[in-house]
Amino acid sequence: MKLPTFVRMVDVGPRDGLQNEKTIVPTAVKVELVDRLADAGLPVVEAGSFVSPKWVPQMGDSADVFAGIARKPGVRYAALTPNLKGLEGALAARADEVAVFGAASESFSRKNINCSIAESLERFAPVMEQAKAAGVPVRGYVSCVLGCPYEGEIAPAAVADVAAKLFAMGCYEISLGDTIGTGTPAKAQAMIAAVAEKVPMDRIAVHFHDTYGQALANILAALEMGIAVVDSSVAGLGGCPYAKGASGNVASEDVLYMLNGLGITTGVDLDKLVAAGAFISEAIGRPTASKVARARGCA
Amino acid sequence: MKLPTFVRMVDVGPRDGLQNEKTIVPTAVKVELVDRLADAGLPVVEAGSFVSPKWVPQMGDSADVFAGIARKPGVRYAALTPNLKGLEGALAARADEVAVFGAASESFSRKNINCSIAESLERFAPVMEQAKAAGVPVRGYVSCVLGCPYEGEIAPAAVADVAAKLFAMGCYEISLGDTIGTGTPAKAQAMIAAVAEKVPMDRIAVHFHDTYGQALANILAALEMGIAVVDSSVAGLGGCPYAKGASGNVASEDVLYMLNGLGITTGVDLDKLVAAGAFISEAIGRPTASKVARARGCA
Repeated sequence: MKLPTFVRMVDVGPRDGLQNEKTIVPTAVKVELVDRLADAGLPVVEAGSFVSPKWVPQMGDSADVFAGIARKPGVRYAALTPNLKGLEGALAARADEVAVFGAASESFSRKNINCSIAESLERFAPVMEQAKAAGVPVRGYVSCVLGCPYEGEIAPAAVADVAAKLFAMGCYEISLGDTIGTGTPAKAQAMIAAVAEKVPMDRIAVHFHDTYGQALANILAALEMGIAVVDSSVAGLGGCPYAKGASGNVASEDVLYMLNGLGITTGVDLDKLVAAGAFISEAIGRPTASKVARARGCA
Repeated sequence: MKLPTFVRMVDVGPRDGLQNEKTIVPTAVKVELVDRLADAGLPVVEAGSFVSPKWVPQMGDSADVFAGIARKPGVRYAALTPNLKGLEGALAARADEVAVFGAASESFSRKNINCSIAESLERFAPVMEQAKAAGVPVRGYVSCVLGCPYEGEIAPAAVADVAAKLFAMGCYEISLGDTIGTGTPAKAQAMIAAVAEKVPMDRIAVHFHDTYGQALANILAALEMGIAVVDSSVAGLGGCPYAKGASGNVASEDVLYMLNGLGITTGVDLDKLVAAGAFISEAIGRPTASKVARARGCA
């Protein structure tokens, strides 16, 4: 098995994981979660989102979260910025990097952000420009890369097309999201191969959901292709909004356990990561979705 | 990715899955479960165990289960037979195949069946002999192949040694069990490689637990080695006895979903399998451990 020797883990729990929580999580809890993840060794933590609180009330305090965190040297604190106003907020909050997003499915784009894929990319052009001027790297998320709740299967070429456009616009990294978790390993590899024809492999990340239990197998398949950046969410925060009670984000603890077993370096400490997961699970009153955490009896 | 074109799925739910249930499951429910699994296309169903009801009260009615099932042509109904008396019961019940077991860990063998590995194999010799005389194939299970609750990591050579002995004694297939689910993909491959030096690859099955969420990734790694027989348990029946509330057996639905996605033929119908899982989950009053079933909202 040919695998990378180092994997950069990106924890999206504080943003992607918490954003759909109905009950507002106190700012102090979010700050402690971000700090715990940084302390556990996560090199990148997605700490918040600068989006209208009308859309995502849970992220209304992202500026306060960024103001409250400890800023561990070497750690990059990232923010989602859907528009120029969001970017301004992220820059004011001193986010180390920002992120924009496009869908690989036309229907998903229209239903989710109410515009075509092409229009969504156009909207990001000024964000990209201004981020560049500020010297802040931009990450591009592509959603629905292995299936869409409205269209079903998505052609690898459609994913490659959006990924290539985001990369051409200046995104330093493209994170490929299996938003509904329907992907399986060989399809994941075919999709990555299509993207890698247009975006260098070392600029591609995977963001796989565990809704159908396939995430770790898909991540393994991606590692075998040369992928070395993996998104995940501590405690598996962030259920699947398309299937009630089902999993969404793959749990960081379970990803790290696999990477450790594979002898891949990450710089992340499993004990501290499990403790961070136990902290947030207790704080929001949900059982952890991490099997590693459950097996260890820590949450 | 080089993968087998066909995988034989072995559902161990009615035996391995149910055996630790505290409340006795009615015989009629067990019979319906076995019949539903056969109807779903499972080629092998482990239907019961002929062991003293003092040890495993839940399996006390295995003779009645075998008497009650519909016996679909082509399906093999298997039974666990720890000793000669058990074999006699299994033969009387017309089990199509029987199974014996050995541990790859000396401590586990002593704590679990109160004898050394060597002694356990000696005890099986007359079982093997009589099964052969009756023309009934014997499967050999090896437990703790990727870790032991008492010893920690287990050397691949120790697994290969027990597997080779069971094979030499006449077992037609050796099922490698990651009893505590601590294995990860590269270690699984190294262990399988060691076993394959002594047992032909097409006589090796994997029986991986999902306690740490690694089962599907490990199964994928095994498929890439050429393994084409996979044990699993419908609805993930059979929690981990070493970690309360944690998963044990990997859910058949999730395995089948991956195999379908990989384009591997199994002959098993996912809809019927999910329905069988919903049936038994409701009957025993437990939420399904299958993520596929949960995502589909069927249990």
